[in-house]
Amino acid sequence: MSWVETELREQPEALSRFLAREEQTARSLARQLDDIQYVFIASRGSSSNAARYAQYLFGTVNRLPVAFATPSLYTLYGAPPRLAGAFAIAISQSGASPDVVAVLAEARRQGRPTLAITNDPGSDLARTADWVLPLHAGRERAVAATKTYANSVAAVALLSAALTGDERRFASLSEAPAVVAEQIERSFADAAELDRYRHVDGGTVVARGVNYGTSFEIALKIRELSGAPFEPFSSADLMHGPIAALHADRPVIVVAPSGPALESLRGFLGKLHELGLTIVGISDDEAVLAASETPLPLVGRVPEWLSPLVTVVPGQIAALRLARLAGADVDRPAGLTKVTLTR
Amino acid sequence: MSWVETELREQPEALSRFLAREEQTARSLARQLDDIQYVFIASRGSSSNAARYAQYLFGTVNRLPVAFATPSLYTLYGAPPRLAGAFAIAISQSGASPDVVAVLAEARRQGRPTLAITNDPGSDLARTADWVLPLHAGRERAVAATKTYANSVAAVALLSAALTGDERRFASLSEAPAVVAEQIERSFADAAELDRYRHVDGGTVVARGVNYGTSFEIALKIRELSGAPFEPFSSADLMHGPIAALHADRPVIVVAPSGPALESLRGFLGKLHELGLTIVGISDDEAVLAASETPLPLVGRVPEWLSPLVTVVPGQIAALRLARLAGADVDRPAGLTKVTLTR
Repeated sequence: MSWVETELREQPEALSRFLAREEQTARSLARQLDDIQYVFIASRGSSSNAARYAQYLFGTVNRLPVAFATPSLYTLYGAPPRLAGAFAIAISQSGASPDVVAVLAEARRQGRPTLAITNDPGSDLARTADWVLPLHAGRERAVAATKTYANSVAAVALLSAALTGDERRFASLSEAPAVVAEQIERSFADAAELDRYRHVDGGTVVARGVNYGTSFEIALKIRELSGAPFEPFSSADLMHGPIAALHADRPVIVVAPSGPALESLRGFLGKLHELGLTIVGISDDEAVLAASETPLPLVGRVPEWLSPLVTVVPGQIAALRLARLAGADVDRPAGLTKVTLTR
Repeated sequence: MSWVETELREQPEALSRFLAREEQTARSLARQLDDIQYVFIASRGSSSNAARYAQYLFGTVNRLPVAFATPSLYTLYGAPPRLAGAFAIAISQSGASPDVVAVLAEARRQGRPTLAITNDPGSDLARTADWVLPLHAGRERAVAATKTYANSVAAVALLSAALTGDERRFASLSEAPAVVAEQIERSFADAAELDRYRHVDGGTVVARGVNYGTSFEIALKIRELSGAPFEPFSSADLMHGPIAALHADRPVIVVAPSGPALESLRGFLGKLHELGLTIVGISDDEAVLAASETPLPLVGRVPEWLSPLVTVVPGQIAALRLARLAGADVDRPAGLTKVTLTR
């Protein structure tokens, strides 16, 4: 079995470990935070997709706006913004990328509260931050992140729950690993449905709301593993121009779990059908699954705010299947290294 | 001549008109703004690419962090974030999209200062805002934005200059339309260089720093006009995963004007060459042009912070050429309408 598949299957265990070990840290951090007007996040790669989740979750649950850092302002321009009112968070599996460390170091210099979410509690990033949420994902050998992504999403969810102080949110979170385990079994069983896309040379992944980051992560995973350029969009942004470049031979993967964004995505499926496009539907909604050429059912049992932990799984497994069909070496994607040191 | 080409050629005139008519509004607005900790921008489509420019420009010149609104939190989730400390800006050519209007209406309800940047001063968006910067681009008939994009970028630049109060910045801005005119002539003269990409079915556009938004706008323009899926990346983000999906038959357009980001992009070109990729270089730098299979020279005479007004031009003209080679109707891209009403 490849490292990617091994680590993908370890996600429920890694999630349980992280939640058990870091719940108290998150509660304690949430009690100490004050004078926060918005959240400021630095990240790269898969971690940026966890940051996109944070933008929706903190916005809708905690009513906190989220800004993303532009690391080049710190490393190339030497002119960082003033961060009054900001709570600065860096998300990085390795904790090693100099540009991400530079953002957190500047926030700390400005006296703002700083948090590192990283799988390496001995990293430069962890040493730079006031607080650390270690991911406890265990060593990740595959270049493509799976369990560190899942645990980064869980870290964001845990922090959001701690900021509300709502015990029902902690209870929902503790039930998520078992649902992820069930989804992994279900999605491996469905994977042969992807074999009709053996010769696909690209496609699109669409979501809206809290799963916007999921669409980025699924597209990135397919790109990294199979080499086929899939690209992510919110359905609304796609309508403002990029939809002109969609073709029937490039499938559109629609991530549409039950929740406030579902109705809007159902309408969007109608537009895709009018254009003669091919739909892969990741959903627990019967109408979406029935409208999909390739339905990839969700076992569905987590509330929508936690759905990104589950909805990414059919995408990860689809990426693995498409890579095998393409004969790619999933543990060594072309041109990539595990730790990327951008400045 | 198509509407797109006509309007693309009108950009210098539209820019001059906007700058002449709105300089005083921007100066007055800048004097009245206070208690601003960050900027909060709502936009869709090409306007989001002007917003990406704002993120770098306000960050590096005005030291203001920029957060992007997630309109679905307002329209689908009904749970908008608290905007204490925010200066809310909406950028929309039509001023009609309900989701963008909803963000500005909520900011105003929360008592935050609001600005509409729009080509229609009679639009819902303009009526919702405390201040309006009308774009004065004249009617834009083509579905693909050119002169409204240029003027939106100019509006951001004008506002940034006004916030600094630095007269040299106003002087540089007033010289920009003539440089854009010269670049349009130069880039039409170079356009036949693109004919080797007649059968191209996709590609990538890369930039870093203040031209990050330019890479998005060029990719969007190529997608809208020719239907070929080009996609934008910062060179740093590309290294963290997506580079695995690049192929020699899909060119990489690198936007690399002189300035703080140039050295980093020069190094990145070496990595692209190692991977055997084909480079289209938009630059005034001899080394970048020499390292490009297809050099698209910039006339270069504006400071880097204004370069996005000029660097987009070779990309717009490349999009037009690729569309002609593909036999596309550039005034009626598949699946698009001029005004898109997303919620």
